[in-house]
Amino acid sequence: MSDHPSRTLATFVAQLRFDAIPHEVVERTVNLYVDWLGSALAGKGARPVESVARFARAAGTCAGEHAGTAEVLIDRTRTTPYFAAMINAAASHFVEQDDVHNGSVFHPAAVVFPVALALAQASNASGREFIAAVVAGYETGIRIGEFLGRSHYKIFHTTGTAGTVAAAATAGRLLGLTPEQMLDAFGSAGTQASGLWEFLRDAADSKQLHTAMAAANGVMAATLAADGFKGATHILEGAQGMAAGMSTDADPARLTDRLGERWATIETSFKYHAACRHTHPAADALLAVIDEHGLEPDDIVQVTAHVHQGALDVLGPVHSPVTVHQAKFNMGTVLGLVAYRGQAGVNDFERDFSAGDIVAFRDKVRMALDDEVDRAYPARWIGKVSVLMRDGRTLRGRVDEPKGDPGNTLSRGEIDAKFRQLAAFSGAATDAEAAQLLAAAWNVATAPHVGMLFGGAPQVAVSIPAAA
Amino acid sequence: MSDHPSRTLATFVAQLRFDAIPHEVVERTVNLYVDWLGSALAGKGARPVESVARFARAAGTCAGEHAGTAEVLIDRTRTTPYFAAMINAAASHFVEQDDVHNGSVFHPAAVVFPVALALAQASNASGREFIAAVVAGYETGIRIGEFLGRSHYKIFHTTGTAGTVAAAATAGRLLGLTPEQMLDAFGSAGTQASGLWEFLRDAADSKQLHTAMAAANGVMAATLAADGFKGATHILEGAQGMAAGMSTDADPARLTDRLGERWATIETSFKYHAACRHTHPAADALLAVIDEHGLEPDDIVQVTAHVHQGALDVLGPVHSPVTVHQAKFNMGTVLGLVAYRGQAGVNDFERDFSAGDIVAFRDKVRMALDDEVDRAYPARWIGKVSVLMRDGRTLRGRVDEPKGDPGNTLSRGEIDAKFRQLAAFSGAATDAEAAQLLAAAWNVATAPHVGMLFGGAPQVAVSIPAAA
Repeated sequence: MSDHPSRTLATFVAQLRFDAIPHEVVERTVNLYVDWLGSALAGKGARPVESVARFARAAGTCAGEHAGTAEVLIDRTRTTPYFAAMINAAASHFVEQDDVHNGSVFHPAAVVFPVALALAQASNASGREFIAAVVAGYETGIRIGEFLGRSHYKIFHTTGTAGTVAAAATAGRLLGLTPEQMLDAFGSAGTQASGLWEFLRDAADSKQLHTAMAAANGVMAATLAADGFKGATHILEGAQGMAAGMSTDADPARLTDRLGERWATIETSFKYHAACRHTHPAADALLAVIDEHGLEPDDIVQVTAHVHQGALDVLGPVHSPVTVHQAKFNMGTVLGLVAYRGQAGVNDFERDFSAGDIVAFRDKVRMALDDEVDRAYPARWIGKVSVLMRDGRTLRGRVDEPKGDPGNTLSRGEIDAKFRQLAAFSGAATDAEAAQLLAAAWNVATAPHVGMLFGGAPQVAVSIPAAA
Repeated sequence: MSDHPSRTLATFVAQLRFDAIPHEVVERTVNLYVDWLGSALAGKGARPVESVARFARAAGTCAGEHAGTAEVLIDRTRTTPYFAAMINAAASHFVEQDDVHNGSVFHPAAVVFPVALALAQASNASGREFIAAVVAGYETGIRIGEFLGRSHYKIFHTTGTAGTVAAAATAGRLLGLTPEQMLDAFGSAGTQASGLWEFLRDAADSKQLHTAMAAANGVMAATLAADGFKGATHILEGAQGMAAGMSTDADPARLTDRLGERWATIETSFKYHAACRHTHPAADALLAVIDEHGLEPDDIVQVTAHVHQGALDVLGPVHSPVTVHQAKFNMGTVLGLVAYRGQAGVNDFERDFSAGDIVAFRDKVRMALDDEVDRAYPARWIGKVSVLMRDGRTLRGRVDEPKGDPGNTLSRGEIDAKFRQLAAFSGAATDAEAAQLLAAAWNVATAPHVGMLFGGAPQVAVSIPAAA
């Protein structure tokens, strides 16, 4: 174990070369990229996402000929990498379809890809450089999430906190930081790390702010580091660092766990259902028991989802969801959708989260802490449900790896279809455009330049509100 | 005590009217403004401050005709309120001459005034609106600092954390937020609150980042709230809010302590010495004992500074300072300067922090936790030193209120002189310009418009680096 893990990790990511990344990790990273791109496009039109975009346009005062070097995916304008990363990250997490790493309970794509794309576009980077920067961010953020532990995730949204340093790692890699500068970038990012779960109780919009600012602060931290701005050198493990302030069970050994041998990137899960990942194990377990016994959902009297403590912490505050977004954090709604609609996709939520049958089913669902599930978590997300039927039977459903987990991952065909569905959902791309985007995205690793995803002349916003 | 203190506090500041603020509070706020303005100008040329300014120029891409509506004080350019607040806040804290509120251990000016000035300029606000917004920020941030308590300050830089919400209160007041919107602004600001002390150990630049981003995030939170972006409604006291994540001794009653009756703003202390406030009580106590006994510093063998725990937490990591800024967090350096130079001003540090006599004296100084001092802290910052002389005598010095504290405050003449010294120190204003700035600043409360402080046409940066 390193006696200075912040430095060991920073050095690893600063020196990470594309050729050192195994082929299967590159291939999976491309899958994660396509999967992310769909999520980012799906955020178009969402109120909080558009609000962040309006803020960024006003704060940046970009206009006319100063068209910017990076692309905003939801409206095809261009701006600086700072604001492009901010807006695209706000968009990435909104429909709850972006990826998640189980062991760290961290959503890497939402904070890593917006930074990688913005700085790759601005610096005209190759696909190889892009992939290396993405892997740098995943490996960093996942290890920091694991390091901060379960006590951290009880209060803090790890994607906001660990995500800020992950974003800095990705940005620093594309800016060509030295190991020393990367350590500075970690310091400046870590001291800006933030994001509290309190917003969930109110159906507030903070989740979009967390990803937006993790990405933007990561760009800032790395850019400052390139300019000589010094950061704390022990920001992760130090006596007044991130773990000291925001964790009671931190394990520094996790920060440097088998660097260059274990590729945490490929441990990342894809989301099949468009809901908080904590609902997925139970959703898949319910689908399994319904399928096995050919159950009619109207005959179900009660469902108990046997969950880990983290699910109770995050989903517990949401009782009667009033928005689509909040419904994605309500176990009953998700189980109702899978019972009646066979899935809980973006369109199912949009159309039916408050439909009569779903609300009625919601009230039949309760969560209970399960010792086996909780002990396995967060390394494994076991799904277990007990279903009480009208005829008095109690049936049990179980999945050991929810759909999308590494051992049950999505195929390229499934990812392709999910992308098309998400692009169509928000109207961010026509079917023809989606096909073009997919063709380019599947080949990103060999592209000489990542470049702009939407061709043609930039359409830049020209209105400049005074007060932002 | 309120059962929803976040809302009570947000409502108070949203509804705060200039006419409700007592005359003496307005007068003291003007003193705090003049005092802050000197600190902001003094940051010109400082490496980390200029680094933040370069980042902001690149990230904002302002240029040419889109000259911006708010002023950057260190270079007289204009930009958006977001970036003006960011840069001016980075500048405000650098020379360690900005104000501090004892009970909350919070530096209000550095995060409140940059926001107030930027948005007052952008919205063409009057001096009365400006003062009300400033008082809103002080009253908010001070109460949140007191609420978060001593456990928070052990790890977190309260000026970064509580300061983010204070900045949002000030911004929200100038944007005319309703109480409901102000609560949203608190939610978005509080979930972005960050700032760790870890940087002190390394003489890193994070303190400037903390104030810069507290101010900028405050502007962002309030601007988003005006646009309908929802925040957590219990961000301060909630089960997954700021105190839950970052304090073990939080006292919610402090959040709403005598709102409208107790004006915490006038409890704020001015800094006389250009060093961390934790050094001031001992510095003044040492000056007192030297003065009383006519001591020669060369005859001093050892000095023990009897301090509160907070001083050990913040100053403890700094042993052999390698930069001027780090020296301001070293008790020995500060005591050496006051012993040999009679004061520890900006020029004394710049010239002499590593001079032979100061370094030799530094090594004669130790800190010891003192029960009386610690029990009085943070409400009172008592200074006590024991001085062992070459002739074997041990002499004791004591001050109950260090110079600049409310009961021993600076006169307008002293603030005026401090301002001129700070402006000259950095070269941010000529003597003639300083006189003009002072004349306007002392009359700010009756000004029909706050306006631009430096007249003439804006000088806008036109270079647009690619990668930021």
